[in-house]
Amino acid sequence: MAVGPAELPELLPVNGVRIAIGSAGIKRAGRKDLVLFELAEGASVAAVFTLNRFCAAPVHVAREHLGKKDPRYLLINTGNANAGTGSRGMLAARQSCAAVAELMACEPEQVLPFSTGVIGERLPLEKIEQALPSLPLLMSEDKWLEAAHGIMTTDTRPKASSVVVKSGGREFTVTGISKGAGMIKPNMATMLAYVATDAPVDRVVLQSMIDDVVNRSFNRITIDGDTSTNDACILVATGAAGGERIVESDCEDYRNLRAAIEQVFVDLAQGIVRDGEGATKFVTVEVVEGRNEKECLQAAFTIAESPLVKTALFASDPNWGRILAALGRAGIDDLDVAKVGVAINGVVVAEQGGLAESYTEARGQAAMAEENIVIRVSLARGDATETVWTTDLSLDYVKINAEYRS
Amino acid sequence: MAVGPAELPELLPVNGVRIAIGSAGIKRAGRKDLVLFELAEGASVAAVFTLNRFCAAPVHVAREHLGKKDPRYLLINTGNANAGTGSRGMLAARQSCAAVAELMACEPEQVLPFSTGVIGERLPLEKIEQALPSLPLLMSEDKWLEAAHGIMTTDTRPKASSVVVKSGGREFTVTGISKGAGMIKPNMATMLAYVATDAPVDRVVLQSMIDDVVNRSFNRITIDGDTSTNDACILVATGAAGGERIVESDCEDYRNLRAAIEQVFVDLAQGIVRDGEGATKFVTVEVVEGRNEKECLQAAFTIAESPLVKTALFASDPNWGRILAALGRAGIDDLDVAKVGVAINGVVVAEQGGLAESYTEARGQAAMAEENIVIRVSLARGDATETVWTTDLSLDYVKINAEYRS
Repeated sequence: MAVGPAELPELLPVNGVRIAIGSAGIKRAGRKDLVLFELAEGASVAAVFTLNRFCAAPVHVAREHLGKKDPRYLLINTGNANAGTGSRGMLAARQSCAAVAELMACEPEQVLPFSTGVIGERLPLEKIEQALPSLPLLMSEDKWLEAAHGIMTTDTRPKASSVVVKSGGREFTVTGISKGAGMIKPNMATMLAYVATDAPVDRVVLQSMIDDVVNRSFNRITIDGDTSTNDACILVATGAAGGERIVESDCEDYRNLRAAIEQVFVDLAQGIVRDGEGATKFVTVEVVEGRNEKECLQAAFTIAESPLVKTALFASDPNWGRILAALGRAGIDDLDVAKVGVAINGVVVAEQGGLAESYTEARGQAAMAEENIVIRVSLARGDATETVWTTDLSLDYVKINAEYRS
Repeated sequence: MAVGPAELPELLPVNGVRIAIGSAGIKRAGRKDLVLFELAEGASVAAVFTLNRFCAAPVHVAREHLGKKDPRYLLINTGNANAGTGSRGMLAARQSCAAVAELMACEPEQVLPFSTGVIGERLPLEKIEQALPSLPLLMSEDKWLEAAHGIMTTDTRPKASSVVVKSGGREFTVTGISKGAGMIKPNMATMLAYVATDAPVDRVVLQSMIDDVVNRSFNRITIDGDTSTNDACILVATGAAGGERIVESDCEDYRNLRAAIEQVFVDLAQGIVRDGEGATKFVTVEVVEGRNEKECLQAAFTIAESPLVKTALFASDPNWGRILAALGRAGIDDLDVAKVGVAINGVVVAEQGGLAESYTEARGQAAMAEENIVIRVSLARGDATETVWTTDLSLDYVKINAEYRS
């Protein structure tokens, strides 16, 4: 089950990026569970990783390698997160990089490893090593969609986005894929996301761009408030489009490219929410007229993560009291509840902290029956606005998470 | 569905407290939905209320009345929370007190109102006013069990506890009831709880006692992390047992009585968790060897409220990686994950941050199959310990909360 149309846009190849997909049989034989990205020499790579203290072995290794060399290969496996696996897990992550390096004739530090799947089980390295030699022959530029499928775990559909942006006579392509459906409250990064452009961008500038757009996309979504051990988000700029390198953020090219990349990031982030485990609703929580960004986000996330709000959304029940109750415990300093207003899909349900005079249960129910819900909360004390995207909490969420692993 | 045996202990009357139960037909005709406590003149009353900013009208009024007079009556209705109801709700709460005052010949300020039920609907005051006159004739000291039933909403069973404590030749009785099954993460107080003793205790001393024991009982439970708008907890000391008044906390009588009252509070708090909406497990999360109380509680609540940990508990799945992942996002400063240990019902699953050598999936599954689960997490960096009680997240939790109101 997922919310909204499943169609993906045409995924444009990005010059300088080739992809191969294989089957290592990590969790199930025959499943596509291995993806290898090849990046052209000279490509800039920026990354954001999970802030979870228990970050997985591949996150440690990817961070370390990124600090030493410019990456040429990204190796992703599903079916096993290689997290909570101690020094043995670190060794397995390093060895997987060494295996790619040997095969592709590069340095092990030029390979970044990524794993996603069950936490706490040993990575079956030998299966990965056996599957790798089949990949070089499969490499091609037009495998983005196949790769979006290849990184899925409990996802029910692939997430991908692609846009073209014109800037000062040049044309840049931005294409990206992501995965994730549960354990979703990214903090600095999301599950896994790989976005590439053929624009030529300096690495430092690219890093500031990813920090910026992640904060407007993946850091604004939550499914269950649980932050993964393996979250990673990679932005590649191959430079294959040619022309002058973008070396500062205060220029037209940067702004044009940034807008296109933000669009792809937001598409991928919303795609994860739409495919949230058991999701039947796509919910936008907008908190407006707050004093600052921090309190707006605090309010928005508290509402978005409230199990009672989420079950009411699942039931299409306009139980706005649960929204106020969640807001009331969000820790907003000196909140004057007598000024607060709430609207659901444009229907004003609460104003001045109580039931709106114009509200009728019939109007509330009609609003909540929609698949896309916008909950707009006004704090009436400033001009800051923040938006968070989430899902409902359904019977299927519990079923999926009670059955996963079994 | 609730966890553990349903039997209650014999509920001993508390001299100086009389109770009557009636039916106002607030939500459904014929349902016992009205409880009136009568406290002997001279009784000390202490209280703790919700910290939710959207606290309900009766909470405002009860707080105000408590500041003005010594209460003689506690009026509790179920079926309607009178929360998010604005100035009309305030008026209804005040009028319900005035109606009791007229009936029982006391001041309106000597009545404390309490409401629990749906948020955001107008309190049907006229129904309460119609039912009140039948109550005085029903007043008696032995109605604690009936009252425990009378304050239930989505609860599947009553919660009550009763103990007798001897202190320096005197004997004190402590009896209490509580209600609550969802929207449970008390902050300063829980749902509704009424505890009385016949000990003679000064009001100021009684208030410090309730603050203290609430912090060791109701403030240590969470079902869904949602804090109610109506939480209130009342401790009455009628003084009917006679003898010297307890006027300070540094004496034997205080300590003996406090221990008995804490026992009753913990019983009531655990009773709420055992009856948590859809609960199939009673879960104790112990965080040991932390630097201080704060970080232990932070870790314990993050684990206890993680939807992924809770669904794994529902599935009896020893998915300890989800426990580590929750701990990893709990915001513990400089946590050295390589030292962390986790045990489930005594089975060591993780040590030094990774899978324990001695661990087998069979042992983990056997431990998780129990109805009572103790998750013990060692931070290995200090000597603080904190305990939190919670439940799993089951299909029934979603069903109950998606269907409530309908």
